[in-house]
Amino acid sequence: MTNGQIVFSEFRKTVELTQGNSILDAAKKVDVEISAVCGGRGLCGKCRVVVKDGSPNLGAVTRLETMSLSKEELAAGYRLACCALLEHDGTMSIEVPPESRVEQQRLLVAGIETAVIRNPSVKKLLLHLSKSSLENVKADAEILLEAITRLGLHIDRGIDYDALTRLSSAIREGDWSVTVGIRDDREIVCVEPGDTTQRTYGLAVDVGSTKIAAYLLDLNEGRVLGTASAPNPQIPYGEDIISRVSYASKSGQNTRQLQGVVIACINKLLHDISESAGIKVSDVYDGVLVGNTVMHHLFLGINPHFLALSPYPPAIKSSVNVRAKDIGLKINSAANVYVPPNVAGFVGADAVADVLATEICTSRPLSIMIDIGTNTEIALGNEQRTIACSCASGPAFEGGHIEFGMRAEPGAIENVYVDPSNLEPGFKTVGDARPRGICGSGIVDAVAAMLKSGVINTYGLINTKLKNSRIRIVRAPEYVLSWREENDVNHDISVTQHDIQEIQLAKAAIYSGATILMRHLGVRASQIQRVFLAGAFGTYVDPQSAVIVGMYPDVPLERVQFVGNAAGSGARMALLSREVRANADRIAQRIEYVELAADPSFQREFTEAMQLPHKHLTRFPTVAQLIAREV
Amino acid sequence: MTNGQIVFSEFRKTVELTQGNSILDAAKKVDVEISAVCGGRGLCGKCRVVVKDGSPNLGAVTRLETMSLSKEELAAGYRLACCALLEHDGTMSIEVPPESRVEQQRLLVAGIETAVIRNPSVKKLLLHLSKSSLENVKADAEILLEAITRLGLHIDRGIDYDALTRLSSAIREGDWSVTVGIRDDREIVCVEPGDTTQRTYGLAVDVGSTKIAAYLLDLNEGRVLGTASAPNPQIPYGEDIISRVSYASKSGQNTRQLQGVVIACINKLLHDISESAGIKVSDVYDGVLVGNTVMHHLFLGINPHFLALSPYPPAIKSSVNVRAKDIGLKINSAANVYVPPNVAGFVGADAVADVLATEICTSRPLSIMIDIGTNTEIALGNEQRTIACSCASGPAFEGGHIEFGMRAEPGAIENVYVDPSNLEPGFKTVGDARPRGICGSGIVDAVAAMLKSGVINTYGLINTKLKNSRIRIVRAPEYVLSWREENDVNHDISVTQHDIQEIQLAKAAIYSGATILMRHLGVRASQIQRVFLAGAFGTYVDPQSAVIVGMYPDVPLERVQFVGNAAGSGARMALLSREVRANADRIAQRIEYVELAADPSFQREFTEAMQLPHKHLTRFPTVAQLIAREV
Repeated sequence: MTNGQIVFSEFRKTVELTQGNSILDAAKKVDVEISAVCGGRGLCGKCRVVVKDGSPNLGAVTRLETMSLSKEELAAGYRLACCALLEHDGTMSIEVPPESRVEQQRLLVAGIETAVIRNPSVKKLLLHLSKSSLENVKADAEILLEAITRLGLHIDRGIDYDALTRLSSAIREGDWSVTVGIRDDREIVCVEPGDTTQRTYGLAVDVGSTKIAAYLLDLNEGRVLGTASAPNPQIPYGEDIISRVSYASKSGQNTRQLQGVVIACINKLLHDISESAGIKVSDVYDGVLVGNTVMHHLFLGINPHFLALSPYPPAIKSSVNVRAKDIGLKINSAANVYVPPNVAGFVGADAVADVLATEICTSRPLSIMIDIGTNTEIALGNEQRTIACSCASGPAFEGGHIEFGMRAEPGAIENVYVDPSNLEPGFKTVGDARPRGICGSGIVDAVAAMLKSGVINTYGLINTKLKNSRIRIVRAPEYVLSWREENDVNHDISVTQHDIQEIQLAKAAIYSGATILMRHLGVRASQIQRVFLAGAFGTYVDPQSAVIVGMYPDVPLERVQFVGNAAGSGARMALLSREVRANADRIAQRIEYVELAADPSFQREFTEAMQLPHKHLTRFPTVAQLIAREV
Repeated sequence: MTNGQIVFSEFRKTVELTQGNSILDAAKKVDVEISAVCGGRGLCGKCRVVVKDGSPNLGAVTRLETMSLSKEELAAGYRLACCALLEHDGTMSIEVPPESRVEQQRLLVAGIETAVIRNPSVKKLLLHLSKSSLENVKADAEILLEAITRLGLHIDRGIDYDALTRLSSAIREGDWSVTVGIRDDREIVCVEPGDTTQRTYGLAVDVGSTKIAAYLLDLNEGRVLGTASAPNPQIPYGEDIISRVSYASKSGQNTRQLQGVVIACINKLLHDISESAGIKVSDVYDGVLVGNTVMHHLFLGINPHFLALSPYPPAIKSSVNVRAKDIGLKINSAANVYVPPNVAGFVGADAVADVLATEICTSRPLSIMIDIGTNTEIALGNEQRTIACSCASGPAFEGGHIEFGMRAEPGAIENVYVDPSNLEPGFKTVGDARPRGICGSGIVDAVAAMLKSGVINTYGLINTKLKNSRIRIVRAPEYVLSWREENDVNHDISVTQHDIQEIQLAKAAIYSGATILMRHLGVRASQIQRVFLAGAFGTYVDPQSAVIVGMYPDVPLERVQFVGNAAGSGARMALLSREVRANADRIAQRIEYVELAADPSFQREFTEAMQLPHKHLTRFPTVAQLIAREV
């Protein structure tokens, strides 16, 4: 009997395999989770793996694989794990690319981890002081300052007020041994009896318009002690950002109300994480908040009215430092909150955090970062030059304006394939629950699968001439994904012609933004070395489906990297390093903002990008191949 | 008939006088108020004037005048206004020294006015901004900062949080004309629509342990718009400072309570002055608070416990800047409060303000400043070197520990003389009300008069051998000032042997402090060019009586200057000038603190100073002359 050995090197796992079994079978044995929506039938094309070594031991590439993989990918060793079967004895080394990993698609608050040299704003020092004598009476503060000066630090910003009121007692309580917290090497933020140097924590928060993610870090070690997230409690005041701006603009009280609910939510998240981690919130000495410009204005209590009026100016571009207690954040009373700079009215502190995390501005390879949301921020460039824009991509990717759209909650159809032979769909839902609707990644997947299988054409029109029970006309043409008997909502769940158009509008906004940036920089898609997809949707969406619908330039899939909540990652980096903060200010100065509305070619680009994947198929060679094969 | 003309040059008043009338008569005619407790009988010696011109037109110096004036004073042209009568035709120019002016003795919140070059911490600028365009979108804050930068200012401390939240609206409301308040040329504290540059006010407060005095100033013009004062509301928590320290030390809550009542009192005073002046408290952009170290700690909310424990260290020596809202002061929310530095545990920010106002540290003449209170601060020196100490002078000068002592309120006996011929007393009360008790200046006056008239000897002992109904023994010897029939309290009001001892203890504390400072500096009393008496008591006390009891070194009276609430004056100076603040820091660094308790000669000095005026009469040549003549 033939015996092969499969090595999943990244997981440090090895498994024996017998002839006729697939790589997917091998993976299941050692709990390497590979995404496979269709259950291993070769239809969904999600279980992509790269065979690094021992390719000849596997069976030939199947017809199903040639439908899902481009020539370049096949040449690079890509296979579908369910289709690649062991044929000959030997060892094979298999790489599971990020897009095929299940875990990658599950973590909402996680994000790319970019190494930083730890140099937090607040550091603690243990000092042993000498007592004052009657012959040489010194004030307590002066004794403390002299001890710090001897260490080479120059405290030119004085002592925080609360620290000052506690100083004398702390010194005696600690019997002249005290721990001082020092901000930016120039200001005393706390004086505590004894040695509390181990207790130095910080809070990083990504305030998304939909979701708030908080991270508690140990500033001494740079370690994440806990994370928590919650829906943005501003949602009841306006599902979309513009509604919230309009609510907040009505009065100062409304602005403070929207600020208040967000801060209360962060305080709750902080409380929960702190309790789990067993730390006191008063030991949290620093905070970093990021968000898009509207979130930025609202959590700072700034009326966002003028952000929504041409020429859409933010109140402030440069980074902001405020006292935590000024905005009601219940960390140490002397703590500061740092907010990275904005680039422009619709490219905010979160985009700067994205760029920090992906290191676009400081790396040699040309990269594009796409943080997909209701507004999608795109940054393109490298260490030489970086430009950015914001696209009004709308709520479709979050399930909004979609007939049976919903958030990525249990029961949401998130992965779809369509069998080209009989046009029967297969899908996977969040939590493997019975279907309740379709989330953003599901609708993109569906549109891509419908295009590949010929249910729709490149104009996005459903081919109602096809004889199939799934294809029908109710008010308008639609394709039924789930019959009412199979689901939990007591009605059929379909993708409607209107839904497809919403996706076309959304993806056209992003693609035309990316194209205009490429033209500004004078580069072609093939020159882009790295594509970073950020945001919850960017984490869930199938990258191949995204490229099939023409959401972003057609680059080899291995260049695409999911960076999850990159804004949260950038916030954590800024929390851990003053250099990152300085860098953020430089980045925001350097990034050139491109106002799409002011670009003369925008309208034409947008119209051309409405087709699937694009009016000019030459721009999507890989996709052209896939469609050609299918249709 | 002889006709003379009297010119009171300082008052710009001229009056005709007929032969046989006195200078006091002339003064009364034109409302030049000269202090004359005995009603012009030549007994009290208070109506001292200096004849600058035309002395020969007056009658010869009387015997009564030689009893009150020293040889040097007589040589310098001093006369008693009631005794100097017109004898020959001619013009006489008369100067009324400050100690003889009635008004000088009435103003409690007033103080010396020392000229400063106006350079307040907060200044306002009117800016006309250029709007952002879609082609060149700038953030509002950046437009503002660029406009300020073009004026040559470098805002390196950013924008106050509250100002940031209001910035965008203010810019539009003012149609791109805004007024910005800038602190120390480096931080934006407010952004207001239109031109509000005229509305820039500041608040200076002297927080005394007994009384709080507040001054509202126009920072553009340096003008005082209004003043108000109130008793310190901490008094119910402890009449003396040590009781308050002990109350505050019990808990953080107690400390905050004592802080709270003081700040509430200041807010009330501010509210009253602002209302009278017709200004808004939000237009008050800066504050200066001064007080002794205990008041300093309490209004800052710092536990003063360790101030009362050897070696009596203050929590902080250097000047303090806190946000007004951190201590609850209801001026503009972005306003700062500046508190001058302390010198030592019992030489506080108020003493530094005294030194600022009297300019001791920056003048050539050797000067001594004595701020008399329960604790008396003394500073001695000049631009070369200045030293300071604090004396535990006790409450006697405020009427405390005195049998019939009371505050300087209506009915308090404040000026006393004793007719040497029959030992009958004469006195004046505050508000000319019927007698109710004796205030601090009254008891000092009484002791001096009793010494001059021989009722007591230089040991302070009442001569019970004298046959006089006023001198009697109840529990101990006493001298009756006011019989019960003449007063409002239904009992005789006397000066007791114990009262005299209290005054001896108090004045010995001050004099020995001054002596030790002189020894440290190697100077003699005659070298002291200026004596500044500060504090309410220092304003009311008769300077000659003070020198007769030996409270401070025997220097010619014309060198003595009443500076009233000099601490309040210093606070106003610091409010108007950043250079004064910088100077305060330098002064506090420069002033050498002398710890009297650690001086080996203190005990001996103190014992010798218990005598009236002193064990060594050679140290008090003027007084020796007066006593010799009388006794």
